[in-house]
Amino acid sequence: MPSQPVKALFFDVFGTLVDWRTSIAREAQALLGPLGHSCDWHAFADAWRAEYQPAMEEIRSGRLPFCKLDVLHRRNLGRILPRFGVKDAPEEVLTALNLAWHRLDAWPDSAPGLRRLRATFRIAPVSNGNISLMVDLARRNGFAWDAILGAEIAGDFKPKPRVYLAACEALDFEPAECMMVAAHSSDLSAAAACGLKTGHVARPNENGAGLGEAGPSVPVDIAATDLEDFAGTMGV
Amino acid sequence: MPSQPVKALFFDVFGTLVDWRTSIAREAQALLGPLGHSCDWHAFADAWRAEYQPAMEEIRSGRLPFCKLDVLHRRNLGRILPRFGVKDAPEEVLTALNLAWHRLDAWPDSAPGLRRLRATFRIAPVSNGNISLMVDLARRNGFAWDAILGAEIAGDFKPKPRVYLAACEALDFEPAECMMVAAHSSDLSAAAACGLKTGHVARPNENGAGLGEAGPSVPVDIAATDLEDFAGTMGV
Repeated sequence: MPSQPVKALFFDVFGTLVDWRTSIAREAQALLGPLGHSCDWHAFADAWRAEYQPAMEEIRSGRLPFCKLDVLHRRNLGRILPRFGVKDAPEEVLTALNLAWHRLDAWPDSAPGLRRLRATFRIAPVSNGNISLMVDLARRNGFAWDAILGAEIAGDFKPKPRVYLAACEALDFEPAECMMVAAHSSDLSAAAACGLKTGHVARPNENGAGLGEAGPSVPVDIAATDLEDFAGTMGV
Repeated sequence: MPSQPVKALFFDVFGTLVDWRTSIAREAQALLGPLGHSCDWHAFADAWRAEYQPAMEEIRSGRLPFCKLDVLHRRNLGRILPRFGVKDAPEEVLTALNLAWHRLDAWPDSAPGLRRLRATFRIAPVSNGNISLMVDLARRNGFAWDAILGAEIAGDFKPKPRVYLAACEALDFEPAECMMVAAHSSDLSAAAACGLKTGHVARPNENGAGLGEAGPSVPVDIAATDLEDFAGTMGV
């Protein structure tokens, strides 16, 4: 049976399209620095991000009901602040800091790559971020999505199958007509298990210099060096 | 208490942004005409549309579970075909005809109006149409949405309160920070009851010459002659 043509591309966002680490470090310094706090702001970003998977696991496992990632980010922030000596920050500063995840900057190739791809494919984020967060990142970085799909539509978090399948169903496509695009092999292997095609985008410095996936560690349909390279491989 | 500024605009689509009647008449003629069928194609469009509210009422009332509007459109099509003497059309023609609702043309002011509004406001359809239908109409007509909200996100159909409130919640706004924009007073009065602001756009010929709302029949915050006029009134 010949392979079905790909009609929709689903994108991971944190790490794949946007550089969360540099952006969070910058935002944390900008908001906590004036209060007299000082630390390794990249370590702060790493610590906050390290709470991400355990927090979602509480929901994926069914121990807690689904909530927006913004809510988990706020809970995780409260967990790491004492480790960095922050005890007395006003609530409005913490609220603004939590929304730092809405102010992440894209890798330079993300917006031009998406622009090329959208002429041929339906494109949507399939991220664990909530809809409002995706909208803010799109407006900030010039991502022109067809729809915002992902965790909030599905009521669960990747890599649970429902998230990938809900995205396919929302666009009326079979999984084999959809491709998950991510810088994380674990995301791609979960999508592949649901029948989606997979595209890996290298982000070798996502977690710091040399600390990111320079290539996939699982079989994928396409492996690209960045999103412009990916667009070229997809023939657009 | 001063009125909260509007941050998001939610749009009704069928009738408000797109001319469903002319488009459906054209598509029905194009698909059924070659099979030898002939009728008043505008009456065909009107008959199909007349089944719309009763079909949704089955779901709003809780008698049937939620399904995409595409599914209701297909059921409604089966109901009206015998009235127009269509008994033997191949299933693939009926499937293509059902997707005529994905190929509706916008009123000429819709895309330019939305383009102006998006620079200042978050904009999203809050329609009873499903996500894939909204995506197709957006691509066809050049609507650049921030997100696709509406019935499929809410799991119910307007004018049930959940649909309006789910849209506000998805963008993290209070109802008073959101404005529902529609050519139908019933839609606006339901949105107002949920605390949203309301904007009426006149579509006096929606259902045929002189058969549409030339103005609101309920109190609204803004009444406009078309979407460009609405954008001007909103100061953009």
